[in-house]
Amino acid sequence: MNLATTLGVVKRNITRTDSATCAKLGKYGVATVHEAMGRMGLMSSYMRPIFKGAKMCGPAVTVLLHPGDNWMMHVVAEQIQKGDVVVAAMTSPNTDGFFGDLLATSFQARGANGLVIDGGCRDVAELEQMGFPVFSKAISAKGTIKATIGSVNIPVICAGALVNPGDVVVADADGVVVVPASVAAAVADAAEAREALEGEKRAKLAAGVLGLDMYNMREPLAKAGLKYID
Amino acid sequence: MNLATTLGVVKRNITRTDSATCAKLGKYGVATVHEAMGRMGLMSSYMRPIFKGAKMCGPAVTVLLHPGDNWMMHVVAEQIQKGDVVVAAMTSPNTDGFFGDLLATSFQARGANGLVIDGGCRDVAELEQMGFPVFSKAISAKGTIKATIGSVNIPVICAGALVNPGDVVVADADGVVVVPASVAAAVADAAEAREALEGEKRAKLAAGVLGLDMYNMREPLAKAGLKYID
Amino acid sequence: MNLATTLGVVKRNITRTDSATCAKLGKYGVATVHEAMGRMGLMSSYMRPIFKGAKMCGPAVTVLLHPGDNWMMHVVAEQIQKGDVVVAAMTSPNTDGFFGDLLATSFQARGANGLVIDGGCRDVAELEQMGFPVFSKAISAKGTIKATIGSVNIPVICAGALVNPGDVVVADADGVVVVPASVAAAVADAAEAREALEGEKRAKLAAGVLGLDMYNMREPLAKAGLKYID
Amino acid sequence: MNLATTLGVVKRNITRTDSATCAKLGKYGVATVHEAMGRMGLMSSYMRPIFKGAKMCGPAVTVLLHPGDNWMMHVVAEQIQKGDVVVAAMTSPNTDGFFGDLLATSFQARGANGLVIDGGCRDVAELEQMGFPVFSKAISAKGTIKATIGSVNIPVICAGALVNPGDVVVADADGVVVVPASVAAAVADAAEAREALEGEKRAKLAAGVLGLDMYNMREPLAKAGLKYID
Amino acid sequence: MNLATTLGVVKRNITRTDSATCAKLGKYGVATVHEAMGRMGLMSSYMRPIFKGAKMCGPAVTVLLHPGDNWMMHVVAEQIQKGDVVVAAMTSPNTDGFFGDLLATSFQARGANGLVIDGGCRDVAELEQMGFPVFSKAISAKGTIKATIGSVNIPVICAGALVNPGDVVVADADGVVVVPASVAAAVADAAEAREALEGEKRAKLAAGVLGLDMYNMREPLAKAGLKYID
Amino acid sequence: MNLATTLGVVKRNITRTDSATCAKLGKYGVATVHEAMGRMGLMSSYMRPIFKGAKMCGPAVTVLLHPGDNWMMHVVAEQIQKGDVVVAAMTSPNTDGFFGDLLATSFQARGANGLVIDGGCRDVAELEQMGFPVFSKAISAKGTIKATIGSVNIPVICAGALVNPGDVVVADADGVVVVPASVAAAVADAAEAREALEGEKRAKLAAGVLGLDMYNMREPLAKAGLKYID
Repeated sequence: MNLATTLGVVKRNITRTDSATCAKLGKYGVATVHEAMGRMGLMSSYMRPIFKGAKMCGPAVTVLLHPGDNWMMHVVAEQIQKGDVVVAAMTSPNTDGFFGDLLATSFQARGANGLVIDGGCRDVAELEQMGFPVFSKAISAKGTIKATIGSVNIPVICAGALVNPGDVVVADADGVVVVPASVAAAVADAAEAREALEGEKRAKLAAGVLGLDMYNMREPLAKAGLKYID
Repeated sequence: MNLATTLGVVKRNITRTDSATCAKLGKYGVATVHEAMGRMGLMSSYMRPIFKGAKMCGPAVTVLLHPGDNWMMHVVAEQIQKGDVVVAAMTSPNTDGFFGDLLATSFQARGANGLVIDGGCRDVAELEQMGFPVFSKAISAKGTIKATIGSVNIPVICAGALVNPGDVVVADADGVVVVPASVAAAVADAAEAREALEGEKRAKLAAGVLGLDMYNMREPLAKAGLKYID
Repeated sequence: MNLATTLGVVKRNITRTDSATCAKLGKYGVATVHEAMGRMGLMSSYMRPIFKGAKMCGPAVTVLLHPGDNWMMHVVAEQIQKGDVVVAAMTSPNTDGFFGDLLATSFQARGANGLVIDGGCRDVAELEQMGFPVFSKAISAKGTIKATIGSVNIPVICAGALVNPGDVVVADADGVVVVPASVAAAVADAAEAREALEGEKRAKLAAGVLGLDMYNMREPLAKAGLKYID
Repeated sequence: MNLATTLGVVKRNITRTDSATCAKLGKYGVATVHEAMGRMGLMSSYMRPIFKGAKMCGPAVTVLLHPGDNWMMHVVAEQIQKGDVVVAAMTSPNTDGFFGDLLATSFQARGANGLVIDGGCRDVAELEQMGFPVFSKAISAKGTIKATIGSVNIPVICAGALVNPGDVVVADADGVVVVPASVAAAVADAAEAREALEGEKRAKLAAGVLGLDMYNMREPLAKAGLKYID
Repeated sequence: MNLATTLGVVKRNITRTDSATCAKLGKYGVATVHEAMGRMGLMSSYMRPIFKGAKMCGPAVTVLLHPGDNWMMHVVAEQIQKGDVVVAAMTSPNTDGFFGDLLATSFQARGANGLVIDGGCRDVAELEQMGFPVFSKAISAKGTIKATIGSVNIPVICAGALVNPGDVVVADADGVVVVPASVAAAVADAAEAREALEGEKRAKLAAGVLGLDMYNMREPLAKAGLKYID
Repeated sequence: MNLATTLGVVKRNITRTDSATCAKLGKYGVATVHEAMGRMGLMSSYMRPIFKGAKMCGPAVTVLLHPGDNWMMHVVAEQIQKGDVVVAAMTSPNTDGFFGDLLATSFQARGANGLVIDGGCRDVAELEQMGFPVFSKAISAKGTIKATIGSVNIPVICAGALVNPGDVVVADADGVVVVPASVAAAVADAAEAREALEGEKRAKLAAGVLGLDMYNMREPLAKAGLKYID
């Protein structure tokens, strides 16, 4: 991090993970992708979809906001390319309503796939009607001001996860996971492999086979000292 | 506040904001009304509807409850007039289930539009079937007792907002906002004006115009020091 | 509690509350059952269904988990009998995703009616499609390991409630309540009696009769010092 | 509330509760004063002294702050008179460090007795050395900006309590209580009377007399249904 | 649990763990005792001493309180014997100030060693002067009423831990742990053994020996896959 | 981030910020350093010292822990050099007692200046006696296991802040701030300059000069619309 290039700056050129990799990651969903990358990259479980069925995937465009101030949301709008997911982080915890239907109209017009915000969101009924997915810390009508600049497309920490511009963000009913661009293709392959194995496991379990037997757990459990009593 | 008239009293005659103003405020919803009154009056974002689609608007009838005790809910029932919203505050934080389908039946029979309670609510599936909207801090089956008196129609602080009897309460998917009776008509007008402007803005944004340009933000952002880099 | 028989043990033979009693308790729901047993036995209100409409009832099969470790979920699977509800407690607070669609497939194949877990759950969209109800503290994709043994069918404290194996667990939109096996039949009878009375009350309240009059509260309220003012 | 006179205004002339009444209230402390005014007026229990032994009492000078912005703290400084307690409320929840040793130096020079802030405080070691008491929601070094105006000496809700300018604020190890100016003298008298009674009670209890007997509770407990078993 | 004997009852005769065992457990402290009993029995980490240096140990006398109501604190006072620790549980979460200097005077006169309460405590400066240790969830001046009966000396769940009357409660700067009476002597012996080993370990570690070597961890770490890189 | 080098690895050679820069940063404290680096780098305000007066500064040695498992604390001990501050992050939220007096003895013998842990700490009375400072999320006696490997000296997110090995960690009564190694010297200079200015300001404020005048705020406040009323 170089402070001179992180405070009050908008980085226009970022390298986005390619859309094929994003699409592949999106297909497998948050839980599988998170497992495929070694159980890393999850945002806090307080990040929830604002409506049922909300899901999205795409390269991150990041924005750092001051509490109670959504000025930079208009700045980041210009940097959105088709398929992007905007990731909004805060300089300190705040649940104000930084985003509503007007900004969503703008983001949607710019081609954004959705928004992840470590703060509040409002107009949630309208956003559901628009089909614009948002994952947020809170739902709040609290209005914000436009007085202080932040930054766009710098590395941010959002809900406990590091997000670099261009990283892949996958979000669904299970939460939000961030895949670093450098490993995105490899993680997508690993997710595919993992999913391939799950079908067979699911069939066995559905037929009544126990995980104890399918995963050969009985011996290690006994070694660990597990005792059966009546 | 006069203690003699606030502890253990039921005020029968209150001045309710007129129904036309209430209806107008209800039409614009929580976010718009909150903005129209200068970004004031919101309850805490922990106040959530107990079922999807719950919304309501009406003059407040207030009640102050002791933790774990819902006796005064029966007292307030008698004071309900058609179109009222009951606002239940607590003398200390508590999430017990002060309200369920029996009380809702009574409130509904009295003409109440809904309930806002800084505590818990139960029988939520039944309340959804009845179409009786409740905004609460928690969903809890915890039963309450009837042992201690509180007050009805005194000024209360509910979820961080001051509510005087007769003030307008607007609640929808974005939360709950309280509009003081003295400014209700002016706020309704301001909300109407604000909403009128939003249609045009929405159309521009949908057509791809940036907020940066529509709101002439580029110059003030540059003055504030924002730098673009590649 | 005998430590020798509670750490690292799986108790195979437990006495389950009979299915008729379970069915009867399930019919009346959480709020009524909780009232019928003297307002005891509720889990914390942070325990919420992972999808709308989730509800279940059955004898408890218990499991104690280490934070971040779901190994024992495979062990408890073998102890499930048709109609059981698995109750998963933690040795310390943790919201990881201990349970997902594979384990749900196994639990469902074994005949489980559902899961109550004082931790996180994932694959919640898939679980809804499967119709497998879970009540959890959190929704989280966080993966868990299989390294440490816990215990199965020992008394546990789950979300603030004591659960002995074989106790009845009732869960619906209002939360989760635990009925000790020794009083289950009596509580079911009390719930039935309580419910019988409610119909008449509901009819009166719907007709506009006030609780103040129906419950003869005016005199005790006056004795308690309640004053009416204008 | 008149919006025109509450947004962006500084009210210079307020009526402070007289210093004799403040001193009397301060002598009895938070718990006694709270009891004396009918168990009302407490701020949330999350308001804690930043150092051990911090305590204060005085008429309130109020200020409403925007999250992350302490500009108005400089505005309120000018309104402080000797013996005042500054009460800082927020337009939305925020824990930034709005107050540190420089502002404390200024407040102390103006004669302030202390600060109550529903937000964060920093330089707490220095503040302890200065002997300037602060009761806050958080300790945080997070810096704030000076960009948005709020108001001074309007009614505010701070940590769940309504504070009007001139009301008495009493704070000690047990928390913070607000006494409305209109009842301050009466509450001070009631606190004195209450305290007078406590000495005798304390002596009896110290001698081994039970509250059960001293307060004649045995009969009402039995009437309430309490049973003794062996 | 037998409902008939748990609601509204005071059990007078309980079997206390003998004082020698209590003293021995108290000597080793919370962390060691918790380890010695297999890492079980801790209350939630939100239970904190109200003053620095507070610590205590003794057999539990239990009381179950209704939120906002401390009537039963007077009932339990009569059941205190010299050396007892009172454990106060709640029927639902509540942080009111159930306990202050008058009750402490009475408890101290009865010989109580201290109080553990899953609620609030007040008069904390006075309690420190009296040297009466309290471990509580909150510090709050909020007054309580005396209207509803609970129970004394029934099994309770306090801050997530099951406490049976007569169990040993150990509390110090690290928190609160409950040792079931049936294993108290064995746990005390195990704690003694554990402590004996720690001296030698401490000396080695102080001399610069690494835990990696002292505990022979290098091989299992390598087996688990740990890699060293430069 | 390269997954192959971040999961299950111990990086032995890291570049530490030089001790002179660390010492200089430590001299100015958390609030000043945080301001000097543009109001960035703070950990969450839930990170608190375990005893009064705890403070420390030094280059970070990082460790990533699994919930409930402190195995890697022994691994990181070997990597400590004189003056280091160990920063322990978690793969998911957990408050167990990962650190106590034995590990502190080892860390102290290795020359560590202190520990920052986004989890729990125990033996806090002993740690105070030893003078070993710890900043933690919780105090908890909960014992941990040694079953799962994590990593040492990889970039971690601890309490919301990104920490790279070798970055400077400054901690005192106001919290914890992380200074990236690449800007540490510049931030130390900026802190020095900032502190130099504060002395003069403090003197003026102590003499009664208002911040309004010292900072020339009256004009911008008036421009922002602030109104004075009587």
